[in-house]
Amino acid sequence: MSGADDADAADGADGMVYLVGSGPGDPELLTLKARRLVEEADVVLHDKLPGPEILGSIPEAKREDVGKRAGGDRTSQEYTNDRLVELAREGRTVVRLKGGDPFVFGRGGEEAEHLVAHGIPFEYVPGVTSPIAGPGVAGIPVTHRDHTSSVSFVTGHEDPTKPESMVEWEALAATGGTIVVLMGVGKLPDYTAALRDAGLAGDTPVALIERATWPDQRVATGTLDTIVDVRDREGIEPPAITVIGGVAGARERVEAFLANELGGYEDG
Amino acid sequence: MSGADDADAADGADGMVYLVGSGPGDPELLTLKARRLVEEADVVLHDKLPGPEILGSIPEAKREDVGKRAGGDRTSQEYTNDRLVELAREGRTVVRLKGGDPFVFGRGGEEAEHLVAHGIPFEYVPGVTSPIAGPGVAGIPVTHRDHTSSVSFVTGHEDPTKPESMVEWEALAATGGTIVVLMGVGKLPDYTAALRDAGLAGDTPVALIERATWPDQRVATGTLDTIVDVRDREGIEPPAITVIGGVAGARERVEAFLANELGGYEDG
Repeated sequence: MSGADDADAADGADGMVYLVGSGPGDPELLTLKARRLVEEADVVLHDKLPGPEILGSIPEAKREDVGKRAGGDRTSQEYTNDRLVELAREGRTVVRLKGGDPFVFGRGGEEAEHLVAHGIPFEYVPGVTSPIAGPGVAGIPVTHRDHTSSVSFVTGHEDPTKPESMVEWEALAATGGTIVVLMGVGKLPDYTAALRDAGLAGDTPVALIERATWPDQRVATGTLDTIVDVRDREGIEPPAITVIGGVAGARERVEAFLANELGGYEDG
Repeated sequence: MSGADDADAADGADGMVYLVGSGPGDPELLTLKARRLVEEADVVLHDKLPGPEILGSIPEAKREDVGKRAGGDRTSQEYTNDRLVELAREGRTVVRLKGGDPFVFGRGGEEAEHLVAHGIPFEYVPGVTSPIAGPGVAGIPVTHRDHTSSVSFVTGHEDPTKPESMVEWEALAATGGTIVVLMGVGKLPDYTAALRDAGLAGDTPVALIERATWPDQRVATGTLDTIVDVRDREGIEPPAITVIGGVAGARERVEAFLANELGGYEDG
Protein backbone atom coordinates (compact mmCIF):
# COMPACT_ATOMS: atom_id res chain seq x y z
CA MET A 1 0.00 0.00 0.00
CA SER A 2 2.96 2.28 0.49
CA GLY A 3 4.44 3.30 -2.81
CA ALA A 4 0.98 4.22 -4.07
CA ASP A 5 2.58 7.27 -5.61
CA ASP A 6 4.70 5.09 -7.85
CA ALA A 7 3.48 4.20 -11.27
CA ASP A 8 1.58 0.95 -10.94
CA ALA A 9 1.15 0.33 -14.62
CA ALA A 10 4.13 -1.99 -14.96
CA ASP A 11 1.94 -4.17 -17.16
CA GLY A 12 1.78 -1.32 -19.65
CA ALA A 13 -1.99 -0.93 -19.37
CA ASP A 14 -2.45 2.80 -19.81
CA GLY A 15 -5.46 4.55 -18.40
CA MET A 16 -7.69 6.83 -20.35
CA VAL A 17 -8.24 10.57 -20.34
CA TYR A 18 -11.61 12.15 -21.04
CA LEU A 19 -11.55 15.87 -21.86
CA VAL A 20 -15.04 16.69 -20.65
CA GLY A 21 -17.04 19.90 -20.89
CA SER A 22 -19.03 20.66 -17.74
CA GLY A 23 -21.30 23.23 -19.36
CA PRO A 24 -21.80 26.71 -17.91
CA GLY A 25 -22.35 25.78 -14.28
CA ASP A 26 -25.90 24.50 -13.72
CA PRO A 27 -25.47 20.82 -12.71
CA GLU A 28 -28.51 19.87 -14.81
CA LEU A 29 -26.69 21.18 -17.89
CA LEU A 30 -24.10 18.44 -17.60
CA THR A 31 -24.55 15.93 -20.40
CA LEU A 32 -25.56 12.38 -19.53
CA LYS A 33 -22.11 11.32 -20.71
CA ALA A 34 -20.28 13.84 -18.52
CA ARG A 35 -22.27 12.70 -15.49
CA ARG A 36 -21.51 9.03 -16.21
CA LEU A 37 -17.80 9.65 -16.83
CA VAL A 38 -17.41 11.71 -13.64
CA GLU A 39 -19.06 8.88 -11.70
CA GLU A 40 -16.80 6.25 -13.27
CA ALA A 41 -13.55 8.23 -13.08
CA ASP A 42 -10.74 7.48 -10.67
CA VAL A 43 -9.63 11.12 -10.71
CA VAL A 44 -11.30 14.37 -11.81
CA LEU A 45 -8.82 17.14 -12.65
CA HIS A 46 -10.46 20.56 -12.59
CA ASP A 47 -10.06 24.26 -12.01
CA LYS A 48 -12.67 26.75 -10.70
CA LEU A 49 -14.56 27.21 -13.97
CA PRO A 50 -17.09 24.35 -13.69
CA GLY A 51 -18.51 26.33 -10.78
CA PRO A 52 -19.34 25.56 -7.16
CA GLU A 53 -22.46 23.45 -7.70
CA ILE A 54 -20.91 20.97 -10.11
CA LEU A 55 -17.64 20.70 -8.19
CA GLY A 56 -19.57 20.28 -4.96
CA SER A 57 -21.40 17.28 -6.43
CA ILE A 58 -18.14 15.37 -7.00
CA PRO A 59 -16.70 13.38 -4.06
CA GLU A 60 -13.72 15.28 -2.70
CA ALA A 61 -11.61 12.10 -2.63
CA LYS A 62 -11.50 11.95 -6.44
CA ARG A 63 -11.13 15.68 -7.10
CA GLU A 64 -7.77 17.25 -7.88
CA ASP A 65 -7.69 21.02 -8.30
CA VAL A 66 -5.13 22.05 -10.91
CA GLY A 67 -6.42 25.60 -10.99
CA LYS A 68 -4.26 26.76 -8.08
CA ARG A 69 -1.07 25.56 -6.47
CA ALA A 70 -0.71 25.38 -2.70
CA GLY A 71 1.01 28.75 -2.66
CA GLY A 72 -1.88 30.39 -4.47
CA ASP A 73 -0.13 30.70 -7.82
CA ARG A 74 -1.86 29.55 -10.95
CA THR A 75 -0.88 26.04 -11.96
CA SER A 76 0.92 26.10 -15.25
CA GLN A 77 -0.64 24.47 -18.28
CA GLU A 78 2.52 22.36 -18.49
CA TYR A 79 1.83 20.95 -15.03
CA THR A 80 -1.72 19.99 -16.03
CA ASN A 81 -0.51 18.41 -19.27
CA ASP A 82 2.13 16.37 -17.45
CA ARG A 83 -0.25 15.36 -14.66
CA LEU A 84 -2.74 13.97 -17.21
CA VAL A 85 -0.01 11.81 -18.75
CA GLU A 86 1.27 10.71 -15.34
CA LEU A 87 -2.18 9.62 -14.09
CA ALA A 88 -2.95 7.80 -17.33
CA ARG A 89 0.36 5.95 -17.12
CA GLU A 90 -0.60 4.82 -13.63
CA GLY A 91 -3.57 3.16 -15.28
CA ARG A 92 -6.15 5.62 -13.99
CA THR A 93 -9.34 6.67 -15.70
CA VAL A 94 -9.09 10.44 -15.68
CA VAL A 95 -11.72 13.08 -16.33
CA ARG A 96 -10.27 16.47 -17.17
CA LEU A 97 -13.34 18.55 -16.38
CA LYS A 98 -13.42 21.94 -18.09
CA GLY A 99 -15.96 24.75 -17.84
CA GLY A 100 -18.23 25.05 -20.89
CA ASP A 101 -16.80 23.09 -23.84
CA PRO A 102 -13.17 21.91 -23.77
CA PHE A 103 -12.43 23.20 -27.27
CA VAL A 104 -13.73 26.77 -26.83
CA PHE A 105 -10.90 28.90 -25.45
CA GLY A 106 -10.26 26.18 -22.88
CA ARG A 107 -6.82 25.05 -24.05
CA GLY A 108 -8.37 21.63 -24.58
CA GLY A 109 -6.74 21.50 -28.01
CA GLU A 110 -3.33 21.82 -26.40
CA GLU A 111 -4.14 19.12 -23.85
CA ALA A 112 -5.36 16.82 -26.62
CA GLU A 113 -2.16 17.32 -28.62
CA HIS A 114 -0.03 16.67 -25.54
CA LEU A 115 -1.87 13.38 -24.98
CA VAL A 116 -1.51 12.40 -28.66
CA ALA A 117 2.22 13.19 -28.48
CA HIS A 118 2.59 10.90 -25.47
CA GLY A 119 0.49 8.10 -26.89
CA ILE A 120 -2.23 8.39 -24.24
CA PRO A 121 -5.70 7.35 -25.39
CA PHE A 122 -8.23 10.08 -24.86
CA GLU A 123 -11.69 11.22 -25.89
CA TYR A 124 -13.21 14.67 -26.27
CA VAL A 125 -16.67 15.00 -24.70
CA PRO A 126 -18.37 18.25 -25.71
CA GLY A 127 -20.24 20.39 -23.23
CA VAL A 128 -22.84 23.15 -23.34
CA THR A 129 -20.79 26.22 -24.18
CA SER A 130 -21.14 29.32 -22.00
CA PRO A 131 -21.04 32.00 -24.76
CA ILE A 132 -24.28 30.55 -26.17
CA ALA A 133 -25.99 29.30 -23.01
CA GLY A 134 -25.10 32.30 -20.88
CA PRO A 135 -26.71 34.89 -23.14
CA GLY A 136 -29.58 32.47 -23.80
CA VAL A 137 -30.61 32.10 -20.18
CA ALA A 138 -30.45 35.88 -19.93
CA GLY A 139 -33.00 36.09 -22.75
CA ILE A 140 -30.58 36.77 -25.59
CA PRO A 141 -30.46 34.41 -28.56
CA VAL A 142 -26.96 34.79 -30.06
CA THR A 143 -28.42 34.42 -33.54
CA HIS A 144 -31.70 35.78 -34.86
CA ARG A 145 -32.85 36.11 -38.45
CA ASP A 146 -33.92 39.69 -37.94
CA HIS A 147 -30.62 40.83 -36.51
CA THR A 148 -27.72 38.74 -37.66
CA SER A 149 -26.49 36.01 -39.95
CA SER A 150 -23.34 35.27 -37.96
CA VAL A 151 -22.01 35.10 -34.44
CA SER A 152 -18.35 35.36 -33.48
CA PHE A 153 -16.71 34.29 -30.23
CA VAL A 154 -13.48 35.91 -29.10
CA THR A 155 -11.52 35.82 -25.90
CA GLY A 156 -10.72 38.93 -23.91
CA HIS A 157 -7.96 36.99 -22.18
CA GLU A 158 -5.36 36.36 -24.82
CA ASP A 159 -2.03 34.59 -24.66
CA PRO A 160 0.01 36.91 -22.43
CA THR A 161 3.21 35.91 -24.23
CA LYS A 162 1.98 37.62 -27.37
CA PRO A 163 2.88 41.28 -27.68
CA GLU A 164 -0.42 42.71 -28.86
CA SER A 165 -4.05 41.80 -29.41
CA MET A 166 -4.51 39.25 -32.18
CA VAL A 167 -8.23 39.94 -32.26
CA GLU A 168 -9.23 41.78 -35.42
CA TRP A 169 -11.90 44.03 -33.92
CA GLU A 170 -12.32 45.99 -37.14
CA ALA A 171 -13.08 42.81 -39.10
CA LEU A 172 -15.42 41.57 -36.37
CA ALA A 173 -17.33 44.85 -36.49
CA ALA A 174 -17.59 44.53 -40.27
CA THR A 175 -19.18 41.07 -40.08
CA GLY A 176 -22.38 42.74 -38.90
CA GLY A 177 -22.94 39.74 -36.65
CA THR A 178 -23.24 39.21 -32.93
CA ILE A 179 -19.91 39.40 -31.07
CA VAL A 180 -19.53 37.43 -27.84
CA VAL A 181 -16.45 38.08 -25.72
CA LEU A 182 -15.42 35.53 -23.12
CA MET A 183 -13.37 36.58 -20.13
CA GLY A 184 -13.76 40.16 -21.26
CA VAL A 185 -14.64 42.14 -18.14
CA GLY A 186 -11.21 43.68 -17.58
CA LYS A 187 -10.58 44.75 -21.16
CA LEU A 188 -14.11 46.01 -21.79
CA PRO A 189 -12.97 49.65 -22.19
CA ASP A 190 -10.34 48.62 -24.77
CA TYR A 191 -12.52 46.60 -27.08
CA THR A 192 -15.65 48.73 -26.84
CA ALA A 193 -13.44 51.64 -27.95
CA ALA A 194 -11.91 49.53 -30.71
CA LEU A 195 -15.36 48.54 -31.98
CA ARG A 196 -16.54 52.16 -31.97
CA ASP A 197 -13.41 53.18 -33.84
CA ALA A 198 -14.21 50.43 -36.33
CA GLY A 199 -17.58 52.01 -37.02
CA LEU A 200 -20.01 50.19 -34.76
CA ALA A 201 -22.72 52.58 -33.59
CA GLY A 202 -22.45 53.82 -30.03
CA ASP A 203 -26.04 52.76 -29.35
CA THR A 204 -25.35 49.12 -30.28
CA PRO A 205 -26.86 47.04 -27.46
CA VAL A 206 -24.43 45.30 -25.10
CA ALA A 207 -25.16 42.85 -22.28
CA LEU A 208 -22.92 41.47 -19.55
CA ILE A 209 -23.79 38.11 -18.02
CA GLU A 210 -21.88 37.39 -14.82
CA ARG A 211 -21.62 33.76 -13.60
CA ALA A 212 -24.07 32.53 -16.23
CA THR A 213 -26.42 29.79 -14.92
CA TRP A 214 -24.75 29.84 -11.49
CA PRO A 215 -27.12 30.41 -8.54
CA ASP A 216 -25.95 34.02 -8.26
CA GLN A 217 -26.06 34.90 -11.98
CA ARG A 218 -26.37 38.62 -12.73
CA VAL A 219 -27.17 40.47 -15.94
CA ALA A 220 -26.43 44.10 -16.80
CA THR A 221 -27.26 45.81 -20.07
CA GLY A 222 -26.32 49.01 -21.85
CA THR A 223 -24.84 50.14 -25.12
CA LEU A 224 -21.37 50.33 -26.59
CA ASP A 225 -21.24 53.89 -25.21
CA THR A 226 -22.56 53.16 -21.72
CA ILE A 227 -21.55 49.60 -20.83
CA VAL A 228 -18.25 50.47 -19.12
CA ASP A 229 -20.13 52.78 -16.73
CA VAL A 230 -22.76 50.09 -16.22
CA ARG A 231 -20.07 47.55 -15.41
CA ASP A 232 -18.51 49.87 -12.83
CA ARG A 233 -21.82 50.85 -11.26
CA GLU A 234 -23.04 47.24 -11.00
CA GLY A 235 -19.65 45.90 -9.98
CA ILE A 236 -19.68 43.15 -12.62
CA GLU A 237 -16.74 40.81 -12.08
CA PRO A 238 -15.23 37.79 -13.84
CA PRO A 239 -16.29 35.29 -14.96
CA ALA A 240 -18.64 37.12 -17.28
CA ILE A 241 -19.70 37.06 -20.90
CA THR A 242 -20.13 40.17 -23.06
CA VAL A 243 -22.70 40.13 -25.87
CA ILE A 244 -22.54 42.91 -28.46
CA GLY A 245 -25.14 43.39 -31.18
CA GLY A 246 -28.82 43.77 -31.99
CA VAL A 247 -29.73 40.52 -30.25
CA ALA A 248 -28.67 42.00 -26.92
CA GLY A 249 -31.81 43.92 -27.70
CA ALA A 250 -34.05 46.32 -25.97
CA ARG A 251 -34.09 46.14 -22.18
CA GLU A 252 -37.80 45.38 -22.16
CA ARG A 253 -37.37 42.27 -24.27
CA VAL A 254 -34.69 40.96 -21.96
CA GLU A 255 -36.95 41.71 -19.02
CA ALA A 256 -39.81 39.78 -20.58
CA PHE A 257 -37.58 36.74 -20.78
CA LEU A 258 -36.15 37.22 -17.33
CA ALA A 259 -39.56 37.46 -15.76
CA ASN A 260 -40.22 33.98 -17.04
CA GLU A 261 -36.91 32.44 -16.26
CA LEU A 262 -35.00 34.11 -13.53
CA GLY A 263 -37.30 34.88 -10.68
CA GLY A 264 -34.42 35.83 -8.44
CA TYR A 265 -32.80 38.33 -10.74
CA GLU A 266 -32.50 41.79 -9.28
CA ASP A 267 -32.30 44.75 -11.52
CA GLY A 268 -29.46 46.96 -10.34
CA MET B 1 -62.81 10.87 -23.05
CA SER B 2 -64.06 11.97 -26.40
CA GLY B 3 -63.33 15.60 -27.01
CA ALA B 4 -59.72 15.10 -25.97
CA ASP B 5 -58.77 17.32 -28.87
CA ASP B 6 -60.68 20.22 -27.40
CA ALA B 7 -58.93 22.70 -25.20
CA ASP B 8 -59.26 21.47 -21.64
CA ALA B 9 -57.78 24.50 -19.98
CA ALA B 10 -61.08 26.21 -19.26
CA ASP B 11 -59.67 27.06 -15.85
CA GLY B 12 -57.13 29.25 -17.56
CA ALA B 13 -54.14 27.23 -16.31
CA ASP B 14 -51.69 27.57 -19.16
CA GLY B 15 -49.14 24.90 -19.81
CA MET B 16 -45.49 25.53 -20.24
CA VAL B 17 -43.17 25.41 -23.22
CA TYR B 18 -39.53 24.35 -22.94
CA LEU B 19 -37.31 25.26 -25.89
CA VAL B 20 -34.80 22.46 -25.49
CA GLY B 21 -31.55 21.79 -27.32
CA SER B 22 -31.00 18.10 -28.08
CA GLY B 23 -27.30 18.43 -28.84
CA PRO B 24 -25.75 17.11 -32.04
CA GLY B 25 -27.35 13.66 -32.11
CA ASP B 26 -25.60 11.30 -29.68
CA PRO B 27 -28.25 10.50 -27.02
CA GLU B 28 -25.58 10.67 -24.29
CA LEU B 29 -24.96 14.30 -25.26
CA LEU B 30 -28.43 15.27 -24.09
CA THR B 31 -28.21 17.31 -20.90
CA LEU B 32 -29.65 15.88 -17.71
CA LYS B 33 -32.28 18.62 -17.90
CA ALA B 34 -33.26 17.80 -21.49
CA ARG B 35 -33.64 14.12 -20.58
CA ARG B 36 -35.80 14.97 -17.57
CA LEU B 37 -37.99 17.44 -19.47
CA VAL B 38 -38.56 15.01 -22.35
CA GLU B 39 -39.61 12.36 -19.82
CA GLU B 40 -41.97 14.76 -18.05
CA ALA B 41 -43.46 16.36 -21.16
CA ASP B 42 -46.95 15.70 -22.44
CA VAL B 43 -45.89 16.49 -26.00
CA VAL B 44 -42.51 16.73 -27.76
CA LEU B 45 -42.58 18.85 -30.92
CA HIS B 46 -39.61 18.11 -33.16
CA ASP B 47 -38.24 18.00 -36.68
CA LYS B 48 -35.59 15.65 -38.07
CA LEU B 49 -32.55 17.49 -36.68
CA PRO B 50 -32.25 15.81 -33.27
CA GLY B 51 -31.40 12.68 -35.25
CA PRO B 52 -32.72 9.12 -35.33
CA GLU B 53 -31.25 7.87 -32.05
CA ILE B 54 -32.67 10.62 -29.85
CA LEU B 55 -36.05 10.65 -31.58
CA GLY B 56 -36.19 6.86 -31.39
CA SER B 57 -35.75 7.04 -27.61
CA ILE B 58 -38.93 9.13 -27.17
CA PRO B 59 -42.26 7.27 -26.96
CA GLU B 60 -44.07 7.72 -30.24
CA ALA B 61 -47.31 8.60 -28.43
CA LYS B 62 -45.88 11.89 -27.22
CA ARG B 63 -43.96 12.85 -30.35
CA GLU B 64 -45.30 15.32 -32.88
CA ASP B 65 -43.25 15.91 -36.02
CA VAL B 66 -43.53 19.50 -37.19
CA GLY B 67 -40.70 19.09 -39.68
CA LYS B 68 -42.95 17.80 -42.44
CA ARG B 69 -46.63 18.03 -43.21
CA ALA B 70 -48.58 14.99 -44.31
CA GLY B 71 -48.15 16.00 -47.94
CA GLY B 72 -44.38 16.09 -47.61
CA ASP B 73 -44.11 19.87 -47.61
CA ARG B 74 -42.08 21.58 -44.95
CA THR B 75 -44.19 22.77 -42.08
CA SER B 76 -44.10 26.53 -41.89
CA GLN B 77 -42.52 28.24 -38.91
CA GLU B 78 -45.87 29.95 -38.38
CA TYR B 79 -47.56 26.57 -37.93
CA THR B 80 -44.98 25.55 -35.31
CA ASN B 81 -45.32 28.86 -33.50
CA ASP B 82 -49.12 28.57 -33.41
CA ARG B 83 -49.05 24.92 -32.38
CA LEU B 84 -46.82 25.75 -29.38
CA VAL B 85 -49.33 28.36 -28.21
CA GLU B 86 -52.29 26.05 -28.85
CA LEU B 87 -50.80 23.16 -26.85
CA ALA B 88 -49.80 25.44 -23.98
CA ARG B 89 -53.31 26.89 -23.86
CA GLU B 90 -54.64 23.33 -23.55
CA GLY B 91 -52.59 23.15 -20.38
CA ARG B 92 -49.93 20.82 -21.78
CA THR B 93 -46.30 20.70 -20.81
CA VAL B 94 -44.55 20.99 -24.16
CA VAL B 95 -40.95 20.31 -25.10
CA ARG B 96 -39.94 21.94 -28.36
CA LEU B 97 -36.90 19.77 -29.08
CA LYS B 98 -34.39 21.35 -31.43
CA GLY B 99 -31.15 19.97 -32.85
CA GLY B 100 -28.01 21.43 -31.23
CA ASP B 101 -28.84 24.58 -29.28
CA PRO B 102 -32.20 26.34 -29.80
CA PHE B 103 -30.61 29.78 -30.18
CA VAL B 104 -27.99 28.90 -32.82
CA PHE B 105 -29.58 29.27 -36.24
CA GLY B 106 -32.54 27.28 -34.94
CA ARG B 107 -35.20 30.01 -35.06
CA GLY B 108 -35.57 29.50 -31.33
CA GLY B 109 -35.41 33.26 -30.89
CA GLU B 110 -38.47 33.66 -33.07
CA GLU B 111 -40.35 30.95 -31.18
CA ALA B 112 -39.44 32.58 -27.87
CA GLU B 113 -40.72 35.96 -29.05
CA HIS B 114 -43.94 34.39 -30.31
CA LEU B 115 -44.50 32.82 -26.89
CA VAL B 116 -43.73 36.10 -25.10
CA ALA B 117 -46.16 37.90 -27.42
CA HIS B 118 -48.91 35.41 -26.50
CA GLY B 119 -48.16 35.41 -22.79
CA ILE B 120 -47.13 31.75 -22.70
CA PRO B 121 -44.58 30.88 -20.00
CA PHE B 122 -41.49 29.26 -21.44
CA GLU B 123 -37.92 28.41 -20.65
CA TYR B 124 -34.84 28.11 -22.84
CA VAL B 125 -32.74 25.02 -22.14
CA PRO B 126 -29.37 25.15 -23.90
CA GLY B 127 -27.92 22.17 -25.70
CA VAL B 128 -24.52 21.05 -26.92
CA THR B 129 -24.12 22.97 -30.16
CA SER B 130 -23.19 21.07 -33.32
CA PRO B 131 -20.73 23.61 -34.81
CA ILE B 132 -18.47 23.09 -31.79
CA ALA B 133 -19.15 19.44 -30.95
CA GLY B 134 -19.16 18.21 -34.54
CA PRO B 135 -15.67 19.45 -35.39
CA GLY B 136 -14.52 18.41 -31.91
CA VAL B 137 -15.46 14.77 -32.25
CA ALA B 138 -13.73 14.81 -35.64
CA GLY B 139 -10.53 15.93 -33.88
CA ILE B 140 -10.80 19.63 -34.64
CA PRO B 141 -10.85 22.14 -31.77
CA VAL B 142 -12.63 25.24 -33.12
CA THR B 143 -10.27 27.44 -31.15
CA HIS B 144 -6.57 26.95 -30.52
CA ARG B 145 -4.02 29.44 -29.25
CA ASP B 146 -1.59 28.62 -32.00
CA HIS B 147 -4.08 29.15 -34.81
CA THR B 148 -6.83 31.54 -33.90
CA SER B 149 -8.17 34.01 -31.41
CA SER B 150 -11.76 33.88 -32.68
CA VAL B 151 -14.33 31.55 -34.16
CA SER B 152 -17.33 32.63 -36.21
CA PHE B 153 -20.47 30.65 -36.96
CA VAL B 154 -22.52 31.42 -40.04
CA THR B 155 -25.39 29.69 -41.76
CA GLY B 156 -25.21 28.55 -45.35
CA HIS B 157 -29.00 28.39 -45.38
CA GLU B 158 -30.15 31.96 -45.12
CA ASP B 159 -33.61 33.46 -45.05
CA PRO B 160 -34.88 32.72 -48.56
CA THR B 161 -37.01 35.86 -48.52
CA LYS B 162 -33.87 37.98 -48.52
CA PRO B 163 -32.53 38.88 -51.94
CA GLU B 164 -28.85 38.27 -51.41
CA SER B 165 -26.39 36.83 -48.93
CA MET B 166 -26.20 38.85 -45.74
CA VAL B 167 -23.03 37.04 -44.75
CA GLU B 168 -20.01 39.31 -44.94
CA TRP B 169 -17.50 36.76 -46.20
CA GLU B 170 -14.83 39.39 -46.72
CA ALA B 171 -15.04 40.52 -43.10
CA LEU B 172 -15.09 36.91 -41.88
CA ALA B 173 -11.92 36.20 -43.85
CA ALA B 174 -10.32 39.29 -42.31
CA THR B 175 -11.00 38.12 -38.75
CA GLY B 176 -8.24 35.56 -39.19
CA GLY B 177 -10.31 33.19 -37.06
CA THR B 178 -11.92 29.82 -37.61
CA ILE B 179 -15.08 29.95 -39.73
CA VAL B 180 -17.75 27.30 -39.17
CA VAL B 181 -20.61 27.10 -41.67
CA LEU B 182 -23.79 25.29 -40.69
CA MET B 183 -26.04 23.83 -43.37
CA GLY B 184 -23.42 24.78 -45.91
CA VAL B 185 -23.06 21.74 -48.18
CA GLY B 186 -25.05 23.11 -51.10
CA LYS B 187 -23.49 26.55 -51.21
CA LEU B 188 -19.93 25.33 -50.62
CA PRO B 189 -18.74 26.44 -54.09
CA ASP B 190 -20.15 29.94 -53.54
CA TYR B 191 -18.59 30.70 -50.20
CA THR B 192 -15.25 28.99 -50.79
CA ALA B 193 -14.94 31.22 -53.87
CA ALA B 194 -16.01 34.27 -51.87
CA LEU B 195 -13.41 33.53 -49.20
CA ARG B 196 -10.66 33.08 -51.80
CA ASP B 197 -11.70 36.36 -53.42
CA ALA B 198 -11.46 37.94 -49.97
CA GLY B 199 -7.84 36.87 -49.71
CA LEU B 200 -7.91 33.58 -47.80
CA ALA B 201 -5.15 31.30 -49.07
CA GLY B 202 -6.20 28.45 -51.33
CA ASP B 203 -4.37 25.98 -49.11
CA THR B 204 -6.36 26.94 -46.00
CA PRO B 205 -7.50 23.65 -44.43
CA VAL B 206 -11.20 22.80 -44.68
CA ALA B 207 -13.10 19.88 -43.14
CA LEU B 208 -16.64 18.67 -43.72
CA ILE B 209 -18.36 16.73 -40.93
CA GLU B 210 -21.50 14.95 -42.07
CA ARG B 211 -24.08 13.86 -39.44
CA ALA B 212 -21.78 14.80 -36.56
CA THR B 213 -21.98 12.33 -33.62
CA TRP B 214 -24.67 10.25 -35.42
CA PRO B 215 -23.83 6.56 -35.79
CA ASP B 216 -22.96 7.09 -39.45
CA GLN B 217 -20.87 10.25 -39.03
CA ARG B 218 -18.40 10.91 -41.86
CA VAL B 219 -15.50 13.33 -42.15
CA ALA B 220 -13.82 14.62 -45.30
CA THR B 221 -10.94 17.07 -45.44
CA GLY B 222 -9.25 19.22 -48.04
CA THR B 223 -8.38 22.85 -48.64
CA LEU B 224 -10.26 25.90 -49.82
CA ASP B 225 -9.12 24.95 -53.34
CA THR B 226 -9.98 21.25 -53.20
CA ILE B 227 -12.93 20.84 -50.86
CA VAL B 228 -15.66 21.12 -53.50
CA ASP B 229 -14.10 18.22 -55.40
CA VAL B 230 -13.71 16.30 -52.14
CA ARG B 231 -17.38 16.87 -51.35
CA ASP B 232 -18.42 15.59 -54.76
CA ARG B 233 -16.12 12.57 -54.69
CA GLU B 234 -17.19 11.56 -51.17
CA GLY B 235 -20.83 12.37 -51.75
CA ILE B 236 -21.10 14.48 -48.60
CA GLU B 237 -24.73 15.43 -47.99
CA PRO B 238 -26.68 17.55 -45.51
CA PRO B 239 -26.71 17.84 -42.58
CA ALA B 240 -23.02 18.71 -42.47
CA ILE B 241 -20.75 21.27 -40.89
CA THR B 242 -17.92 23.02 -42.72
CA VAL B 243 -14.82 24.11 -40.75
CA ILE B 244 -12.43 26.54 -42.42
CA GLY B 245 -9.08 27.54 -40.92
CA GLY B 246 -5.81 26.36 -39.47
CA VAL B 247 -7.54 24.25 -36.83
CA ALA B 248 -8.96 22.00 -39.56
CA GLY B 249 -5.31 21.14 -39.63
CA ALA B 250 -3.13 18.66 -41.31
CA ARG B 251 -4.76 15.38 -42.24
CA GLU B 252 -2.35 13.43 -40.04
CA ARG B 253 -3.41 15.30 -36.92
CA VAL B 254 -7.05 14.63 -37.62
CA GLU B 255 -6.19 10.98 -38.18
CA ALA B 256 -4.37 10.79 -34.85
CA PHE B 257 -7.53 11.95 -33.13
CA LEU B 258 -9.80 9.74 -35.18
CA ALA B 259 -7.76 6.66 -34.41
CA ASN B 260 -8.53 7.24 -30.75
CA GLU B 261 -12.13 8.19 -31.06
CA LEU B 262 -13.83 6.91 -34.12
CA GLY B 263 -12.87 3.32 -34.67
CA GLY B 264 -15.46 2.91 -37.36
CA TYR B 265 -14.49 5.86 -39.50
CA GLU B 266 -13.50 4.94 -43.03
CA ASP B 267 -11.18 7.18 -44.95
CA GLY B 268 -12.68 7.79 -48.38
